[in-house]
Amino acid sequence: MVSASHADSSLEALAATLDPSRRSWVSSANASESDFPIQNLPFCVFSRASDVPRVGVAIGDQIVDVHAALSRGLLHGDALAAAEACSHRSMNALMALGRLPARALRTQLSELLRAGGAGDDARESLGPALLVAQRDVTLHLPAVVGDYTDFYASVHHATNVGRMFRPDNPLLPNYKWVPIGYHGRASSVVVSGTPVHRPMGQRKGPTDDVPAVGPSRSLDYELEVAAWVGAGNALGSTIPLSAADEHLFGLSLLNDWSARDLQAWEYQPLGPFLAKNFTSSVSPFVVTLDALEPFRAPLAPRADGDPAPLPYLSDDRDRARGGFDLTLDVSLRTATMRASGDAPVRVSRASFLDLYWSLGQMLTHHASNGCNLRPGDVLGSGTVSGPLDGAQGCLLELTRRGAQPLTLPNGEQRGFLEDGDEVVLTGYAERPGAVRIGFGHCIGVVG
Amino acid sequence: MVSASHADSSLEALAATLDPSRRSWVSSANASESDFPIQNLPFCVFSRASDVPRVGVAIGDQIVDVHAALSRGLLHGDALAAAEACSHRSMNALMALGRLPARALRTQLSELLRAGGAGDDARESLGPALLVAQRDVTLHLPAVVGDYTDFYASVHHATNVGRMFRPDNPLLPNYKWVPIGYHGRASSVVVSGTPVHRPMGQRKGPTDDVPAVGPSRSLDYELEVAAWVGAGNALGSTIPLSAADEHLFGLSLLNDWSARDLQAWEYQPLGPFLAKNFTSSVSPFVVTLDALEPFRAPLAPRADGDPAPLPYLSDDRDRARGGFDLTLDVSLRTATMRASGDAPVRVSRASFLDLYWSLGQMLTHHASNGCNLRPGDVLGSGTVSGPLDGAQGCLLELTRRGAQPLTLPNGEQRGFLEDGDEVVLTGYAERPGAVRIGFGHCIGVVG
Repeated sequence: MVSASHADSSLEALAATLDPSRRSWVSSANASESDFPIQNLPFCVFSRASDVPRVGVAIGDQIVDVHAALSRGLLHGDALAAAEACSHRSMNALMALGRLPARALRTQLSELLRAGGAGDDARESLGPALLVAQRDVTLHLPAVVGDYTDFYASVHHATNVGRMFRPDNPLLPNYKWVPIGYHGRASSVVVSGTPVHRPMGQRKGPTDDVPAVGPSRSLDYELEVAAWVGAGNALGSTIPLSAADEHLFGLSLLNDWSARDLQAWEYQPLGPFLAKNFTSSVSPFVVTLDALEPFRAPLAPRADGDPAPLPYLSDDRDRARGGFDLTLDVSLRTATMRASGDAPVRVSRASFLDLYWSLGQMLTHHASNGCNLRPGDVLGSGTVSGPLDGAQGCLLELTRRGAQPLTLPNGEQRGFLEDGDEVVLTGYAERPGAVRIGFGHCIGVVG
Repeated sequence: MVSASHADSSLEALAATLDPSRRSWVSSANASESDFPIQNLPFCVFSRASDVPRVGVAIGDQIVDVHAALSRGLLHGDALAAAEACSHRSMNALMALGRLPARALRTQLSELLRAGGAGDDARESLGPALLVAQRDVTLHLPAVVGDYTDFYASVHHATNVGRMFRPDNPLLPNYKWVPIGYHGRASSVVVSGTPVHRPMGQRKGPTDDVPAVGPSRSLDYELEVAAWVGAGNALGSTIPLSAADEHLFGLSLLNDWSARDLQAWEYQPLGPFLAKNFTSSVSPFVVTLDALEPFRAPLAPRADGDPAPLPYLSDDRDRARGGFDLTLDVSLRTATMRASGDAPVRVSRASFLDLYWSLGQMLTHHASNGCNLRPGDVLGSGTVSGPLDGAQGCLLELTRRGAQPLTLPNGEQRGFLEDGDEVVLTGYAERPGAVRIGFGHCIGVVG
């Protein structure tokens, strides 16, 4: 346990790192459109050429080699445990330490990297020693994912999809009581940029006599946020909602690719399986909850008449600041667009505050039966959709199951994804009085 | 790849190890009721006192310390790769080698252990050097489980359960086309003997206005077989049914504990979650497919009018010998029985040939969309139930959801499990002209 005074001083230090006036001597971090200002400092796993991967911290268009900073004696005291964990090939050891050691490390790095800070005098020597350009590295999956759980926390998504699969019964009676989730596939969680193969499978339309086997004809993306579990819990123990934040290490973007034709035929009664487990892509940068502190907010209010969450899912702090005010975008670029040099075009924009359940409620519910969560586990939010047109986080919703295809600027149409299509998820937090915190990209090209 | 002549000689060697007349100088292996005769030689992970766990091979009431055999130069040639992998703390490295290296190792161990074989002259010195009594070791989870998939391959179970949850629609239209499966929880797969905690959760009966939260009132066991994946497949590649056996390393017993009240309320539309992921117990011995060779058989025939499996799930060899003729038992002992010194009493007996889908079909289906399987992954068969009374593999079926409780010999009744109840799964293969191959026990005590 951490003493109260230690926690207080750690919060004070955190507040300083979030100060909007803080700027870095790494000039690319100060650009207003940068995803990675000095206030962000997300973790990633990177490697140069044939080096063994290790954990670094992004700033601007660079990555801080934490191992190098440690070797040069630039880190000390309460940052050492996290810095040493950064020598591993994955973030699991760092995540296992929980949030405070990572905070201590980010606090010291922020001081080293800030203009006018401890590292400022030595920036000419520090730069080459500590920094590596993001364009020169390979980024890896942040952690070994022991278990990947996918939730279903957007009531708008659940209602839209439910209407298509069960027109007379779109939202099931348990939805407003239970943070619905299911286990996904850990082996096929891959880092952004990994090619996405179109899965084969069985499909059977309502008028088909028998199922056919072939490549999916309804390949879809799903716009999600991945929450990385930090400190875990022992099998048989639970995590109260008041402590849930301490078990959430940080967030990335997640694209839970889905084959809707396979899904419709296979999903009853035990849920999605081959329709989902062929690939799930995550972005390589893990944005800490600390960096998102200025963007905590209540979720959109429940509709009148909805039940209050049961006591184990209810907590004043969660009600007031259980959400994160993130804007999440999906952009699409076809092979034809790429050949013409066109940029990806945005097809959806959603707010992460439109979820029905907070990440804390999802985590607490997950462990409420004594299920053990482990460092590096992924909790997917489920597809993030808003109540309005254009805020639907997947093509299934956006095109009404393909019946109302999107028309792209070059005249191409899309009901579902075609080979060569590139899907780009982006996310960021932005508000007056705070510095923009970005997530980078989660990209996949089909085929 | 393995040359044809190598494969032939390996099959010849295998046949010799299965010879029913072969006996061991380890006398406990020759008892007719032993689960572990010299023809079995299942793998396990064991440790003595404070030793680091490593992989061993069971014979009679002993375990062969493969590392010790290797250190003493008793193994050679094509057994070395598997023997070296046995120095690891888990079987993953051994499983990753695929079936042939394990066959080579078991062949050499069989020769060392057989009466009249290579080790017979030295048995007085070999015994103490190589063998450790099972009663003196701790047995561990056989492998680090990357992903645990649970299938639903017993049509009798699916029909019985479907009738309770959906009286008008017991068996869904996809069942006879798709080997239905879903992802379970890897973190809570534990070795036999681990205590089973009763999970808390939400439940809501059909006449309740709102859900209540509390300890499950309908705790159940599920009698299953776990298939361990050996050699894996790369993401995006598939495994034809003709090659499925080469990716199956061996089998254990599996108890997929289930909270039926939580399940009924939470499972739609994405499948079971907290009702299952609090504990799944596996037996510590991995019986190789090689040891089960004499017990390959066709599954029970599909009913008249059932569709033939689709081409990717159809193969002459699978049709002729896709099943394993195993007898699977569930026994129950209450705390009162234990206090009185009573043995567990058998409540179910099922045949593993009563499945609708073979393990090969499950594995091939699983990878048919390019999902990557990894060494150490577990494929659960789903609850094994037969068509007749007394062959139901869980209490939900056996007691008609608690409505027709079991009466035990001491007069106690059970609709579902109570605290202190001990559930013991056992399994074995037996037939005239072959030696009995057993699985040991999978045990869990509730509470």
